[in-house]
Amino acid sequence: MSFQRIAIIGLGLLGGSLGLAIAQRLPNASTAGFDADPATRERAAQLGLVGTVCGTAAEAVAGADLVILCVPVGAMSNAALTFAEALPTNAVVSDVGSSKASVAKALAQALPHHTIIPAHPVAGTEQSGPDAGFGELFAHRWCILTPPANAPESAVEKLSAFWEALGANIEIMDADHHDLVLAVTSHIPHLIAYTIVGTASDLEEVTRGEVIKYSAGGFRDFTRIAASDPTMWRDVFLNNREAVLEMLGRFTEDLTDMQRAIRRGDADKLFDLFTRTRDIRRGIVEQGQDDARPDFGRKDH
Amino acid sequence: MSFQRIAIIGLGLLGGSLGLAIAQRLPNASTAGFDADPATRERAAQLGLVGTVCGTAAEAVAGADLVILCVPVGAMSNAALTFAEALPTNAVVSDVGSSKASVAKALAQALPHHTIIPAHPVAGTEQSGPDAGFGELFAHRWCILTPPANAPESAVEKLSAFWEALGANIEIMDADHHDLVLAVTSHIPHLIAYTIVGTASDLEEVTRGEVIKYSAGGFRDFTRIAASDPTMWRDVFLNNREAVLEMLGRFTEDLTDMQRAIRRGDADKLFDLFTRTRDIRRGIVEQGQDDARPDFGRKDH
Repeated sequence: MSFQRIAIIGLGLLGGSLGLAIAQRLPNASTAGFDADPATRERAAQLGLVGTVCGTAAEAVAGADLVILCVPVGAMSNAALTFAEALPTNAVVSDVGSSKASVAKALAQALPHHTIIPAHPVAGTEQSGPDAGFGELFAHRWCILTPPANAPESAVEKLSAFWEALGANIEIMDADHHDLVLAVTSHIPHLIAYTIVGTASDLEEVTRGEVIKYSAGGFRDFTRIAASDPTMWRDVFLNNREAVLEMLGRFTEDLTDMQRAIRRGDADKLFDLFTRTRDIRRGIVEQGQDDARPDFGRKDH
Repeated sequence: MSFQRIAIIGLGLLGGSLGLAIAQRLPNASTAGFDADPATRERAAQLGLVGTVCGTAAEAVAGADLVILCVPVGAMSNAALTFAEALPTNAVVSDVGSSKASVAKALAQALPHHTIIPAHPVAGTEQSGPDAGFGELFAHRWCILTPPANAPESAVEKLSAFWEALGANIEIMDADHHDLVLAVTSHIPHLIAYTIVGTASDLEEVTRGEVIKYSAGGFRDFTRIAASDPTMWRDVFLNNREAVLEMLGRFTEDLTDMQRAIRRGDADKLFDLFTRTRDIRRGIVEQGQDDARPDFGRKDH
């Protein structure tokens, strides 16, 4: 038995893509959606991101057998409280947040009598808002479920089947391990990208115009990541603090080591690192997690 | 009067692209090329990267009115010495290296009686070698010339016109300023990318398989940059040491500041940075230095 009535709370890039993916790949399921921002609700209705755009979260979850929260991780608890009383007893509650231990805790407190299975589809673009959504966002991407120990096996299987129907590959993981893995594959890369773009903006010796003009030397890739949604990312860093600080510590140790190698002119150490890093790239391309064309096939190539 | 006989020393991504671009856009000019690696020479001949592939650098520069060195910046001096005696008196010598002060010095020492105008087309991909070349690499990209004070104005104009014919925009700049600007827009981004990919490879708690699987969260963009040519980048860091260490110092100050904000839960500070960084991205897309499509239009979107 698959989910029949799905409520999506939050209709930005993720929520909108989810609604479109369900319409394309699970045409027998109905969707209802809500967003706290009236302008987003209006736009979501124009774009047909979900079957019904509701005026309240409570209305959206009425009769739902699956509710997916697509709001910033810091807003999960408040969002859940707005529909807690209207939520059917047997509904499964999930989310798409980028950190999982804090979300699991927040949702368990807000909805103590419901089945909660936190999830994280590792997919996204630098764009945000309802216009950014597209139904193929989750295809060939991994969706990580972090069910708590007491989650019914059948609900985990049903949620796995749901994400597989949207084109995703499934992995089941402990929430704390998820947070550590994503700290290194997503959170630290975003922090570094935001920081270097900030550094470049603040230089006195190099103008902003120069930074823009010569960005094709590598910098422009960082600006793409640093154009991601500020609220979402603020919440990620506040809610995955321990794992981010731990991984940031490892990174700065390694960066200090490279700094010393440059200062000392240690050619072998530089060459060794620059050679080692090619293997992981090869694995990513081989496993279909990136495009092998040079520069990702940017249009001017 | 434009250049008629152009010698290209080094037939990898840059040298090969240069040969192809000249053939496409300056059909009246002839090209001769040399690479120290016999396998690269053979492949360059098969691919037709230059009109004539020569067995020695001296043979390639014979009769040339423009010689462009396309070798790693640490190899410029030795490469120049191999053809110094065969170089016509009135030939202009240039290069495509990513650092300029050290190259200017090395070439001036190796070729004390020639006109030397160092140059840097800010263009490239993560791929390297003769098969990676393509004639449109320089289109809509900036080419920075760093002529020494004694360079004849006419030669600077002729070299500018040459690069413009290949589709590039020209900027004239002091070599030291170039090295500072590129440290922030290219060298530090590469160092950071290489380092975080190295950090991720070495973790005990997170497997390499996990890093690959969940790389779509941001990490994969860093692996692309970290797949760039190791020899080229080793030489860049050894030859632009001062500017790289200066800019790396600024970056690590800023990163430490963000680390403190995360530790203290300073939401406003995080949100402020994450908002500010969007402006520069907008400028880069508006000025045609990157593709505005989400994820650069990766094929699975």
